[in-house]
Amino acid sequence: MNFTRREFGGLAAAGMLSRLTPAAEAQQEGRVIGYGIVGLGRISMQHFMPSLKMSKRARVTALVSGHREKAEKMAAEYGVPGNSIYSYADYERIADNQNVDAVYIALPNSMHAEYTIRAAKAGKHVLCEKPMATTVADSRNMIEACRSAGKKLMIAYRCQYEPTNLHAIQLIRDGKLGKIQAIESAHGFNIQPKEWRLDRKLAGGGPLMDVGVYSLNACRYLTGEEPNSMKAVASVIDHDGRFEEVEENLAWSMTFPSGIVASCNTTYGANMPGFYRVHGSKGMLHVEPAFAYEGLHLSAQMQGEPPIDEPNPEHDPIQFQREAEHLADCIVHNRQPKTAGEEGLRDMQLMMSLYESCGRI
Amino acid sequence: MNFTRREFGGLAAAGMLSRLTPAAEAQQEGRVIGYGIVGLGRISMQHFMPSLKMSKRARVTALVSGHREKAEKMAAEYGVPGNSIYSYADYERIADNQNVDAVYIALPNSMHAEYTIRAAKAGKHVLCEKPMATTVADSRNMIEACRSAGKKLMIAYRCQYEPTNLHAIQLIRDGKLGKIQAIESAHGFNIQPKEWRLDRKLAGGGPLMDVGVYSLNACRYLTGEEPNSMKAVASVIDHDGRFEEVEENLAWSMTFPSGIVASCNTTYGANMPGFYRVHGSKGMLHVEPAFAYEGLHLSAQMQGEPPIDEPNPEHDPIQFQREAEHLADCIVHNRQPKTAGEEGLRDMQLMMSLYESCGRI
Repeated sequence: MNFTRREFGGLAAAGMLSRLTPAAEAQQEGRVIGYGIVGLGRISMQHFMPSLKMSKRARVTALVSGHREKAEKMAAEYGVPGNSIYSYADYERIADNQNVDAVYIALPNSMHAEYTIRAAKAGKHVLCEKPMATTVADSRNMIEACRSAGKKLMIAYRCQYEPTNLHAIQLIRDGKLGKIQAIESAHGFNIQPKEWRLDRKLAGGGPLMDVGVYSLNACRYLTGEEPNSMKAVASVIDHDGRFEEVEENLAWSMTFPSGIVASCNTTYGANMPGFYRVHGSKGMLHVEPAFAYEGLHLSAQMQGEPPIDEPNPEHDPIQFQREAEHLADCIVHNRQPKTAGEEGLRDMQLMMSLYESCGRI
Repeated sequence: MNFTRREFGGLAAAGMLSRLTPAAEAQQEGRVIGYGIVGLGRISMQHFMPSLKMSKRARVTALVSGHREKAEKMAAEYGVPGNSIYSYADYERIADNQNVDAVYIALPNSMHAEYTIRAAKAGKHVLCEKPMATTVADSRNMIEACRSAGKKLMIAYRCQYEPTNLHAIQLIRDGKLGKIQAIESAHGFNIQPKEWRLDRKLAGGGPLMDVGVYSLNACRYLTGEEPNSMKAVASVIDHDGRFEEVEENLAWSMTFPSGIVASCNTTYGANMPGFYRVHGSKGMLHVEPAFAYEGLHLSAQMQGEPPIDEPNPEHDPIQFQREAEHLADCIVHNRQPKTAGEEGLRDMQLMMSLYESCGRI
């Protein structure tokens, strides 16, 4: 649980933690959560929405898009009625749609805050893609808007619900690697020109915000600690028009309170398979791919333990289904999501520290 | 060649670049260089000396040790006459030993400077283990002593003579990876208590000086550039008596003038296989192990090229033989070693920058 004591007290006072009768609980248990999809891009159409086709706990009940035609096509595919298709202008009307419990926000980063806050005001829970926003202030406003509306806010950190990453965390927590000393991680790709990700205003930053955040978040969930010192360097190599506003490459080093050190790399200029390697006094684990939608692979060597070589056979879009169902469970059982807004806020604060350390490109 | 114009002029003036007659040259060509071994530790006895058993261009002709009995045993094995065994006190007497052309210095780091300088004054060339010294001042003094004595100084950077590393460099220089963007590297091991490596005065620093230097040197030879910005963090986790004087963990990030970024890790608290991974706009290469005495392995994926999966079948101590023979060639042909003192000095300066950046433990 990510509540502070004060927040917890506030929720209790607001009656949000009141118990239901057993009959009402059973009814709640069987509830299927309806998602309004905000933004019909690749991640929504090819991953999140298809994942709900397999789910018994969540389904697509509304669409929010600037492209009516595309929305109507998707509506037909997902059995969404025509009156549950919204434009960005009349987005607030979802307040009246009883079939929408939550929204999934998959827009350019800078729009996350506005569409989260408007959803909360419309009485809807929010599952928001990472990075949570483009500024710390926006992140705080999102948390506050959902808190004061009594709605859940979950950031879509897939890897924290995914078995290969969870197994890596478990090996560490169980002491199989001994005392953890150091982590290496990297994640990047060679970006196409003209993507919104290269627009500083829309993206908030370069590869750090988009894919480096996976390494940062991984170092935090692997150690279970928050960095207490961070130093970064950044550069642009390709003066081909792509990197007028955001960094191309960023490398950073950080320490955690226990003394664990991490060195990380991210880029928009090269294919850089997402991986991490954790070194402990009694062993080492390596996950690669670590952040992909499928095909994850864990290997580990540990003193006095058989080695692990564990490919994950699951297929995309299972990771998206897990996220959607986690928030559904949180709604049904009135629990705080494992990766609530505060988790996104921490990464945002840390990324801003990294940008401060290296100077913005 | 690493000469400055001034140094080159000085050498020419001293007649050191004078041409030999063809007959004299042929005689030189067949010369077998005699090495005096300074320090009979693991690296000398298990690697460097055995490597010369296979060489037609270099042989062991003297031993310098504080342990007479051990020295006599080794002398018998290598056919070194009793009058070519020296103590550290009468080391200068090698000046009179015409069978000694060069010395191989494999002592604790802080002793490299003294024994290099004494060798140069005794008229001997020097092959000195890495790290070159424990201070920048000592490194400069070593270079100056050898320069003014007209003797070669080579630092034993094995990897720069080793085919797997050379192949990695070649792929990069040939543009097979496109424009290089980023490098990850790590190297460390879990150190036993009471090693001289844990004594700050003898070692000069912790894992950075001992094994991290491989990653630093690799980033330099892979890029062919010198870092222009470096940031480090360091820590001690195990308060078990090992790390009273040196760091246990050190992570750093750096940039190069072209914009290439690198993130590196080193530790004395965990097994951290030496590796590097180089990301370019058109491909990636990974070498692991990258710094070991044998078993090196290069793999690469490149656009429009067949993938490379290239284990190196060579066995230890071939890498030591190559170093010994490189200096032998440099002596015979009066060439500057590829990894001359200046190469070691650069790493020393850079390591001091890293320590400055993170603060000494």
